[in-house]
Amino acid sequence: MTTQMAREMAEQPDAVARTLDALMPMRPEIARLAQGRDLVLFVARGSSDNAAIYGRYLLETHALHPAALAAPSVATHYGANLDLSHALVVAVSQSGGTQEIIETQAWASDCGAATIAVTNVEGSDLAAEADVALVTRAGPELAVPATKTFSTQCAAMAVLGTALAPDPTSLDGDLARVPDEIAGLLKARAGVDAAVDILATTQEVLVTGRGLTYGTALETGLKLEETCLRPVRGLSYADLRHGPIAIVDRQLVSVVLAPQDGPMLDGLVELEADLAQRGARTVGIGGDARFAQQAHAHVAGPDLPEPVTPVALVVASQMVVEGLALALGLDPDAPRGLNKVTQTDPAGDA
Amino acid sequence: MTTQMAREMAEQPDAVARTLDALMPMRPEIARLAQGRDLVLFVARGSSDNAAIYGRYLLETHALHPAALAAPSVATHYGANLDLSHALVVAVSQSGGTQEIIETQAWASDCGAATIAVTNVEGSDLAAEADVALVTRAGPELAVPATKTFSTQCAAMAVLGTALAPDPTSLDGDLARVPDEIAGLLKARAGVDAAVDILATTQEVLVTGRGLTYGTALETGLKLEETCLRPVRGLSYADLRHGPIAIVDRQLVSVVLAPQDGPMLDGLVELEADLAQRGARTVGIGGDARFAQQAHAHVAGPDLPEPVTPVALVVASQMVVEGLALALGLDPDAPRGLNKVTQTDPAGDA
Repeated sequence: MTTQMAREMAEQPDAVARTLDALMPMRPEIARLAQGRDLVLFVARGSSDNAAIYGRYLLETHALHPAALAAPSVATHYGANLDLSHALVVAVSQSGGTQEIIETQAWASDCGAATIAVTNVEGSDLAAEADVALVTRAGPELAVPATKTFSTQCAAMAVLGTALAPDPTSLDGDLARVPDEIAGLLKARAGVDAAVDILATTQEVLVTGRGLTYGTALETGLKLEETCLRPVRGLSYADLRHGPIAIVDRQLVSVVLAPQDGPMLDGLVELEADLAQRGARTVGIGGDARFAQQAHAHVAGPDLPEPVTPVALVVASQMVVEGLALALGLDPDAPRGLNKVTQTDPAGDA
Repeated sequence: MTTQMAREMAEQPDAVARTLDALMPMRPEIARLAQGRDLVLFVARGSSDNAAIYGRYLLETHALHPAALAAPSVATHYGANLDLSHALVVAVSQSGGTQEIIETQAWASDCGAATIAVTNVEGSDLAAEADVALVTRAGPELAVPATKTFSTQCAAMAVLGTALAPDPTSLDGDLARVPDEIAGLLKARAGVDAAVDILATTQEVLVTGRGLTYGTALETGLKLEETCLRPVRGLSYADLRHGPIAIVDRQLVSVVLAPQDGPMLDGLVELEADLAQRGARTVGIGGDARFAQQAHAHVAGPDLPEPVTPVALVVASQMVVEGLALALGLDPDAPRGLNKVTQTDPAGDA
């Protein structure tokens, strides 16, 4: 039986293509809105926050535009009256209905920021109240784990990151190849079963990545935790190296995500070797041939350059997550205790 | 036998008092350096990053000055040539010798930023190359787990956060009480043994907090993991509510940190109740009487208002960490696999 999650994963080539087609023409509008604003601030939670991390790195490394993540509680709980007249605030929410994100976007606007909403729901409060709405074209998502809504959010981040670049079109050729690369990954399922076999043997999982694909690593960790009901630590390469690597041992399975090129690759190959030397088993996702060889199990990633890799790489993770849930006898479509529209604070809490 | 870690913990009332005395007179100099710069960007890793999170929240909620955390790899690996002429960059490193942080500070300066170094080592490269150096007065720290160097970093963050506030002196009365509050916590050790007893029974720990004390929660998680060699997930209240709370069960011990007042307290009391209802045992650190009552074990925090709480609250966590390490038969002074000066990349890696 095919799961709803797998059906929605299979829609991603079309969903990403539709989203890119719809949003790429909006780049001049995005650039106009950002004019004279020297900082892009992302507002998001959960999976949307992981997409925003990609947006942040792409803006800084490709568009050379300072970007950072906002702390929503500064708005929602502390009500701090900041001067954001120099900022472009990008609020990301699949449903466009997460109260905390809507409220933070409204606060940012009151503080003088220009606002962009990235959401999958046209006419949602978040979209309606933004200066510009980038509406992703994932279509309705019924399975609880975000799949096509996440990859289309990443497509929106690619549009945003290129919109503010000196040459907005320089990645267009690579972006045009993303849908086919996703289709290829879904068809080949290369290495997925071996990765599931290793992950099924442990209760202790650590997921790591760095730079442009760090958000994909965090998203992989979040989905493994929510869908497969295992405690998972998601850590940046640097945070891992700064301490927690001390407790790596034979119980641990470490999932490492990497692009196939770029300045992060060498360090991530070395990290795999280091983790293996400490006794951990490693699942590599993406990377190049050396990276694949170093891992105990390897899931193939897309043949794309690092700046656009995150739009497709998460699909490799999704196949592992869905496969592991089924292997553990769990229902990937409706993990225990989760709802589709998430609210940070219980109803009634300020 | 007294551990080196305990001896250094006991020095904190003096170390924090010395640091506040030394740095508070520098507030006008900090304010001058920040003039016309609309963003404070922190550069840090590990424990220093957790102190920076406090600095970030204090700047935004108390000084009403936008602040965020930088991604060092944008400098060290991507070499992105950003325009930071509108930014004040604050680099935090205990040793002042972490190559990645030194390099990122130099990059920020080249990008037009004004720079402040927060370090415990006068004459370190980080201090020497900054426009202004805030040198903490912790004295030499020999135990590997950062204790007095962390609380003095938090004291430096309090100086920074108040320096840019409309009235820089409005928290001075509270700050003056911090050393005595720390001394009181260390003397009373209220609830520490009960917390250690609960934590010793599990291999699965989650630490959470929110807002101004979120950095203290992450630091508590990092120290538990490094010193007690247990895998620990450190999550914000919001990130926990957005998914991972689904997998809370009877194996889990959840450590919740809270200030005794402020807009975060109610939500953290409710969170304790929710976690208990899901079967987890909770260790509360800090908070008020309701918060204490809700927890299965409660470690008393300081009698201070939320904005200055983080300078003292971590001391309660340190007592639990040291006690747990001893209870597990581990040496808290020299945890497995850690060095005092941490480098993010292995020697030779770019």
